[in-house]
Amino acid sequence: MPKINGERLLNDLHHLRSIGAFETGVIRPAFSAKDMEARHWLKSQYEAAGLEATIDGVGIVLGKSRNPGPALLVGSHSDTQPTGGWLDGALGVIYGLETVRALAEDPATAHLAVDAVSWQDEESRFFGCMGSSSFCGLPVPQPGDGAVDKDGVSLDDALREAGLEGVARLQVDRERYIGFLEAHIEQGPHLEDDGNTIGVVTSIVGLRGKVFTFTGQQNHAGTTMMAGRRDAATALYALANAINEEFPKVAGPRSVWTMGRAHIHPGAPSIVPGRAELELQFRDISVDVLDAMDATADRLVEEINARGGATVQTEPSRVQINPAHMDESFRAHFSTAAEAHAPGHWVDMQSGAFHDAGIVCSALPCGLMFIPSIGGISHDFVEDSHAEDIVRGCSVFADATASIVLAALTS
Amino acid sequence: MPKINGERLLNDLHHLRSIGAFETGVIRPAFSAKDMEARHWLKSQYEAAGLEATIDGVGIVLGKSRNPGPALLVGSHSDTQPTGGWLDGALGVIYGLETVRALAEDPATAHLAVDAVSWQDEESRFFGCMGSSSFCGLPVPQPGDGAVDKDGVSLDDALREAGLEGVARLQVDRERYIGFLEAHIEQGPHLEDDGNTIGVVTSIVGLRGKVFTFTGQQNHAGTTMMAGRRDAATALYALANAINEEFPKVAGPRSVWTMGRAHIHPGAPSIVPGRAELELQFRDISVDVLDAMDATADRLVEEINARGGATVQTEPSRVQINPAHMDESFRAHFSTAAEAHAPGHWVDMQSGAFHDAGIVCSALPCGLMFIPSIGGISHDFVEDSHAEDIVRGCSVFADATASIVLAALTS
Repeated sequence: MPKINGERLLNDLHHLRSIGAFETGVIRPAFSAKDMEARHWLKSQYEAAGLEATIDGVGIVLGKSRNPGPALLVGSHSDTQPTGGWLDGALGVIYGLETVRALAEDPATAHLAVDAVSWQDEESRFFGCMGSSSFCGLPVPQPGDGAVDKDGVSLDDALREAGLEGVARLQVDRERYIGFLEAHIEQGPHLEDDGNTIGVVTSIVGLRGKVFTFTGQQNHAGTTMMAGRRDAATALYALANAINEEFPKVAGPRSVWTMGRAHIHPGAPSIVPGRAELELQFRDISVDVLDAMDATADRLVEEINARGGATVQTEPSRVQINPAHMDESFRAHFSTAAEAHAPGHWVDMQSGAFHDAGIVCSALPCGLMFIPSIGGISHDFVEDSHAEDIVRGCSVFADATASIVLAALTS
Repeated sequence: MPKINGERLLNDLHHLRSIGAFETGVIRPAFSAKDMEARHWLKSQYEAAGLEATIDGVGIVLGKSRNPGPALLVGSHSDTQPTGGWLDGALGVIYGLETVRALAEDPATAHLAVDAVSWQDEESRFFGCMGSSSFCGLPVPQPGDGAVDKDGVSLDDALREAGLEGVARLQVDRERYIGFLEAHIEQGPHLEDDGNTIGVVTSIVGLRGKVFTFTGQQNHAGTTMMAGRRDAATALYALANAINEEFPKVAGPRSVWTMGRAHIHPGAPSIVPGRAELELQFRDISVDVLDAMDATADRLVEEINARGGATVQTEPSRVQINPAHMDESFRAHFSTAAEAHAPGHWVDMQSGAFHDAGIVCSALPCGLMFIPSIGGISHDFVEDSHAEDIVRGCSVFADATASIVLAALTS
């Protein structure tokens, strides 16, 4: 099995961290100057590792092996949240790079074809998982579509400034690839809480969302009697609270739901609100559970509408994701490698967070593994993992990569 | 009784409307160029009516009668909301001017001392009812205090541009005044709905407010299990809904409460909110009812805090107003005048909206009367009243003014 270089791995992770570093975190959203600087650095690293590297029209950095196939694609994403942690997608990107190098340095694996990748905009500046979606032929914003980020910057302007205007977009070569392998920090507390150091992901939970729009009548908060009001905020508070009270009755043991976005218009203490908006997001591994939560939300909307007062309309959120199941054979390779490097301290688990592997599995078999997040914290400047966990995880990842490609060559 | 000139009254109202006119409404916020233009025009009208007129350091336009006292102060405010209606405070200001003229033209009342006033910033650009509060010796922002409007413009700059820098602020002369009389549009639907044309205000409702701050733990909405969450929005929705369910049990028949301002941080659908803010405002004529609503809100906060999850802290809102009771004798004068001009079509009523009379009654006896608002609409460009209601209201106002001063002279 290949031997990874832990010092080189950590050095490269810290170098990538330095591009867009802010306090203990990183600010490197997709297509920003720092993001593109990181991508050009990564391209040079891929080339130094012997790969044929390119940056495509959506910013994907792909390093292709010069060995004959079949090939395994490995990596994650190097873009960050607006105020992101240093590991998030960067960990899996550098795991991919180090794995390619380690395999090339070992005569037993130097002939294997492994391509390394950094996807683009996993963190939804313009469109979540735009890179992997584009690569797999799923619908993504095209130039001239008018896509904008939350600050109103257009994708077209961002592509122009990133030097990607008119650059072709790569498409997956299904004949070339055995599949895609990704590593990521857990972004949750389970590995740490249970004393495990490797998580082998079975499935990525599905996600659904609804946007509720409340329409009432704006009015003076002093002179409009309660009986005559159609208060949009009152309906919002009632629906949101009812969802929190009713969802536990239909949810699974690991279902989650969140109403993190709410707006009241015009938002003044002396004005009865005429309009409001609430977004509900819910996740589970089971389509049946998602359906039950969906139906519960619809029933509660009907009940609010039956009350009189402000009315509620429901639209699906922009992002709806089906549960994604990881390849069983890839899981077995991960398990074998995990047992070798962390005997008795690895576990099968589901992923509550979404990842590019959840997109790529629409086109190729996928595998996904986790290492522990300290305190379970992510999407925050304080996001961190222990160095020994980082190094151990890369050994597991490199072993699984090698054994999957070797198995494909002999099958 | 004096005879008002309806045509002159309507002409002056329309002239005032033209200063800052926008569509069917008026944009004339306190200290703006249009507001000051209106105040200088009003000063000239006061002088033409024989008054000794001045604009003080907070923009109050005061026209003092040259007759010996005791004097009655009459008027309202000529500043508007950022997108205001044409009548709001302007009606009462021009009623004051026309009343002074009508009394001077009638030999039976020409000797009476009536001062006319336009207060300043009733609509809270910098500080609600700043003019009447300053006049009555209540705390108001002073030069150098750093007061700013919602756009960040400082009061000091606004005073400088208005030409009021260094100008002295008037103080109420308690020896001179019998009291203060104000007229206003109702800003609600009751007069119109019940076929009445004059409202004699008994009291202005009190107003209390609380700002609730919810503190939880921001986290990833996919990986943070429900049991481990401290979701600030969940606590906000629960408290707001509980207030809407519990307040009816302690409220009076005309209590109102509103939660028109709510903010969820950071406000993303994929992030468990770590912080949230909610403002509750409630109004009633009775201090006991206000106390009961206050205690109910406090109890519900304790219940939310006892649940675990996010915690709630409560602060009083910036504005807290005690119920204000109008002078009984002034009410009797209004009632007599209303019965003369609108027999059987006037009513005693409370005011759900706040007015300068609610401030001035801390220093002087006050009276307040309403005329109908079409559709009950106010603080909106479409705000309007029927011309015949406007003229009739001024006759009632002038009669009450004359009879109050005459009664003071003979007592």
